[in-house]
Amino acid sequence: MDYHVIFQPYGRRGDVPSGTSLLEAGQKLGISIRSDCGGGGTCGKCKVQVVSENRPPAKQTVLSPLTAEELEYLTAEEIDRGFRLACQAYVLANVLISIPEESRELNQIILESGVKRTLHLNPAVRAYAVHCPAGSLTNQTADWERVKFELEHNHNLPQILIIDYSALISLPDVLRKQNGEVTLYVWENKEVIGVQAGLESLNLGVAIDLGSTTVVAYLCDLTNGKVLGIESIVNPQVKYGEDVLARITYALNGPESLNDLHNIIIDGINSLIKKLNNHTHTAAADIHDVVIVGNTVMHHLLLKINPQYLGRLPFLAAIQSAVDLRARDLGIQINPGGKIYILPNEGGFVGADNVADLIAEEPYNGDKLKLIIDIGTNGEIALANRKILAVTSCATGPAMEGAQIKFGMRAATGAIERVTIDPENLKTDYKVIGKDEWASENPATEARGICGSGIIDIVAELFKSGVINKTGKFVMSAPSARLRKNDDGKIEFVIAWKEETAIGKDITITQGDIRAIQLAKAALYTGAKYLMSKYNIEKVDEIILAGAFGNYIKPENALLLGMFPDCPLEDIIAVGNAAGDGAKSALLDVDKRFEAQEIARRSVLVETAVETDFQAQFAYAIYIPHAKDNFPQLKSILEKIPQWDKIVTTNK
Amino acid sequence: MDYHVIFQPYGRRGDVPSGTSLLEAGQKLGISIRSDCGGGGTCGKCKVQVVSENRPPAKQTVLSPLTAEELEYLTAEEIDRGFRLACQAYVLANVLISIPEESRELNQIILESGVKRTLHLNPAVRAYAVHCPAGSLTNQTADWERVKFELEHNHNLPQILIIDYSALISLPDVLRKQNGEVTLYVWENKEVIGVQAGLESLNLGVAIDLGSTTVVAYLCDLTNGKVLGIESIVNPQVKYGEDVLARITYALNGPESLNDLHNIIIDGINSLIKKLNNHTHTAAADIHDVVIVGNTVMHHLLLKINPQYLGRLPFLAAIQSAVDLRARDLGIQINPGGKIYILPNEGGFVGADNVADLIAEEPYNGDKLKLIIDIGTNGEIALANRKILAVTSCATGPAMEGAQIKFGMRAATGAIERVTIDPENLKTDYKVIGKDEWASENPATEARGICGSGIIDIVAELFKSGVINKTGKFVMSAPSARLRKNDDGKIEFVIAWKEETAIGKDITITQGDIRAIQLAKAALYTGAKYLMSKYNIEKVDEIILAGAFGNYIKPENALLLGMFPDCPLEDIIAVGNAAGDGAKSALLDVDKRFEAQEIARRSVLVETAVETDFQAQFAYAIYIPHAKDNFPQLKSILEKIPQWDKIVTTNK
Repeated sequence: MDYHVIFQPYGRRGDVPSGTSLLEAGQKLGISIRSDCGGGGTCGKCKVQVVSENRPPAKQTVLSPLTAEELEYLTAEEIDRGFRLACQAYVLANVLISIPEESRELNQIILESGVKRTLHLNPAVRAYAVHCPAGSLTNQTADWERVKFELEHNHNLPQILIIDYSALISLPDVLRKQNGEVTLYVWENKEVIGVQAGLESLNLGVAIDLGSTTVVAYLCDLTNGKVLGIESIVNPQVKYGEDVLARITYALNGPESLNDLHNIIIDGINSLIKKLNNHTHTAAADIHDVVIVGNTVMHHLLLKINPQYLGRLPFLAAIQSAVDLRARDLGIQINPGGKIYILPNEGGFVGADNVADLIAEEPYNGDKLKLIIDIGTNGEIALANRKILAVTSCATGPAMEGAQIKFGMRAATGAIERVTIDPENLKTDYKVIGKDEWASENPATEARGICGSGIIDIVAELFKSGVINKTGKFVMSAPSARLRKNDDGKIEFVIAWKEETAIGKDITITQGDIRAIQLAKAALYTGAKYLMSKYNIEKVDEIILAGAFGNYIKPENALLLGMFPDCPLEDIIAVGNAAGDGAKSALLDVDKRFEAQEIARRSVLVETAVETDFQAQFAYAIYIPHAKDNFPQLKSILEKIPQWDKIVTTNK
Repeated sequence: MDYHVIFQPYGRRGDVPSGTSLLEAGQKLGISIRSDCGGGGTCGKCKVQVVSENRPPAKQTVLSPLTAEELEYLTAEEIDRGFRLACQAYVLANVLISIPEESRELNQIILESGVKRTLHLNPAVRAYAVHCPAGSLTNQTADWERVKFELEHNHNLPQILIIDYSALISLPDVLRKQNGEVTLYVWENKEVIGVQAGLESLNLGVAIDLGSTTVVAYLCDLTNGKVLGIESIVNPQVKYGEDVLARITYALNGPESLNDLHNIIIDGINSLIKKLNNHTHTAAADIHDVVIVGNTVMHHLLLKINPQYLGRLPFLAAIQSAVDLRARDLGIQINPGGKIYILPNEGGFVGADNVADLIAEEPYNGDKLKLIIDIGTNGEIALANRKILAVTSCATGPAMEGAQIKFGMRAATGAIERVTIDPENLKTDYKVIGKDEWASENPATEARGICGSGIIDIVAELFKSGVINKTGKFVMSAPSARLRKNDDGKIEFVIAWKEETAIGKDITITQGDIRAIQLAKAALYTGAKYLMSKYNIEKVDEIILAGAFGNYIKPENALLLGMFPDCPLEDIIAVGNAAGDGAKSALLDVDKRFEAQEIARRSVLVETAVETDFQAQFAYAIYIPHAKDNFPQLKSILEKIPQWDKIVTTNK
């Protein structure tokens, strides 16, 4: 016979056979209860509390009787309040158990996206299932005060609880729907922000990486840290401007324009949340917490703060601290009492997205000096280890995210994410997101476009094959039918033939596309170099490539392009969307929020736009690779390129 | 030559002659700065801080130079931060001064409404004028963090400040409007809830007594406690039901009906605030705090909480604690970051209005046992002294507020508030609110109707004159042209002839009106008597009559009616709108909010509706005076009534 066991405050639940100890039940359901003696009843550390039947004598019936060991480790008052040792008490009926703070093992979870990251599950909002007794003429205590008593006395919450207005107004009806069985969502151990009838309600959160071009949202289960769904959209603000400067300029038109930019992104976020809910068969009301990261301009537009002072000297943000507000104040459609937490900004031009990269990568905990490059429309660069913590940003433009590229698209199903070109015969192969085989194995690729990592591959491979030269220009003598003039007389190189695609058109890369990538990579290189020169750093220990442009960036090709200063290939690591991972970690572990505040406070901002030689440095960086960097690490790769001598000679 | 001096955090300001000491300037402007030595420079208690020019060397120019006494009592760090002794520093230019907490005398203010009440000015929201330095490329600290630094370091606020979302979004523009001169509105020393450009912004609050029939709002200046305006309206919910039970019944129709009740009162409150603003030439944005009191049903409907559980056994409220929320969450149109504070309820049927009566009257601080009767559509009764604190409520009906009375109206200009009838000749005289003379002195009274105190007078005077008998019935033989049948064949008594009125109609009192008053007073008497009998109290030391029905209630007439148990006349005190006074005191002094929470928690609820002999007791109480009370204190009054013997005989 199986019985249903629920563990609070995580809300983890499942069935276990009759006679399973609570300690084993916890292990089975993925809850770590502290047990220093390994379940022998000799340490007394695995104290838990029976909630559903905590009024004698009923408590005797759902679990096996008290043992001698329990009588030794539990006080009479604890026994009266339903406390048991988890290793000594065996399940004999359905039971709801609360694990006090001191009996919880820190609950380690693993985020798997670009790389695996380990963190502790410690969300801001926790769900507490409560049996609230009904009132009577002899106890006319009001609804909220009866619920508050249960939480404070039977769930060991501090006696300072308040209730949010939206939760309060639904409390009387919700409380009576299932005879006093309710789930209460408690934020930071101090405020009830949501109530739902019954003991088995969901507790979800959303982490959002709000990029200038791409917005990615992750739906997470706050009871176990699992990512239930991921959705992304193009930031709908692009219709008002491709990059942050264009949007600041649009906002200068007046409050109406600022409203436009604000409303459209709020609508966009709501559409993402709706998709996440639909695909996971969950409801907006189940979502109680949202963490958002983005650059300072995205941050200000999201909040409807005039961004104009970000765009002019001395580049001041409205706020650096984290912003903690109600979803309803922003019009984000989750539970009406739900919370929004926006990570802190480091300054006027380096924002919460960079902070998110940092708390995901944690370079400040190690000795290795890392250069973290977040490749987006606004590039965020950090140079950091235990001693140094310096940050900057650069206007990369949207090319790396596939925007303003003829066949560019974001990293989604159908995007060409990897490309190879054989320097010997210019034979071209590619792989599409959503397909396991390369085009050469199965030409029915149904490609729809090219995402960031594909574009980087293409430009690097074209260069290695001599199809473009050091200045990025097509070398028209290259012997390939793929290199051609299109109908407008513009030169282009075909990556996928129309028969292979889902769009019925040849997918090509144009001279303009290559120029856009050069500008983007030059901005990244220049930013990184200024940051390093500020600290007289010639060489970093590790280069971390982050971004929502696709996880499969090939370090060799990125280095060859001259996207960042020279570095041994083995020290270049692509980690995927680190900002998204940082947002998820701040959603799942409140301690990461404190860490973020501290990091934002400590970071040194390096402003490159005011450097007098910026234009000259930028011009050198447009070359493939950089015109001045001698790339000692890259040399062996370069020398393997057949046309290398010719290329070098041509461009001298 | 006069200079302008502003004192923070009160925002008190004014001009003083050159050479005035800051201590004298404070006294002149009504700010009490602590000065144990009386201004001799020998106690060091009058430390204040110069804010406007607190960066050396400018600070030397606005005030006289530092004296030897100051060098003795001020540390080098304090001098550097602009601290001075108020008795030693003389005004030589316009100056902005901040008075630290420890240098403030508790600021006593007096509320004058029905009675004078003294309280300390200690509002939840205080205004701080700040000169915030601009940012620069070498100090790129964000706007909020620069402001926060000023508040925390130059205004001695604790370093935990946060900023509300609505204040944050206006900060960047407001900060730059007057070169960094801003006024910040700080709630409970922890949150900036509003920002306004310039150093001289208003800081206003509103106290609201939300009655079933009458809603009264008081606009107060939070910098000096002055009441700037009073407005009242009939509660627009009356269209959905005259009393609390009728409105609960209406709300039972479903969420739409609850919305109707909620929306109409929010609109009503907004219209009151608009009137207050218009009449005082102030703006909604100047209002930062609102305190509301009302019975539990009004409380729930205001908050859009389903009131049905208040109306059925065991009469449970949704919440007893005070409710603290944002004005924008409720749609109350004040400053968007402004706060709403609703006083706590004592239980399901005794609400925040009774708590307001109690914190205004403070019976719990004295030995005198007081019976506090708040005469509204829902009557609230408390029996209290240092030892006892018991409360109940009763369904009085709206008659005492002039509703459901043929010519009834609320206590406003044109209302007949006092009436006398000579028992010898039935000569009738009356006085109207807004006129100093009685009708007999100047018949052009422009009366428009009769308010609660007038109705009580009329019924008592009719009885004393033998025009009505002990059962409340008109004695048709009474020799007066004023007693007549109206067009519908109903008996009525004329109070004001149409020529005297502003409405062109005779203002009369009908048999139905008298019946309504009898039901109301019977409810009050029965409630009070149950409360007393619960504690075996035969006689109280004082009876306090409160209510928004008009301040000029005549204790003799109220006693004669049998509105409450017998009491010596000199111990019956009419205090006007005590609930409104309680709301004002909680608005002006946050300590009164804590007092209210404590009182609400301590109060013993006495439920009369479940008493088995309620109907019988109520029936006795309908008589004029009470059929069973022998009114020893009233006897001498009764015996002076010419027809007394006859009346007593008639009704035996």
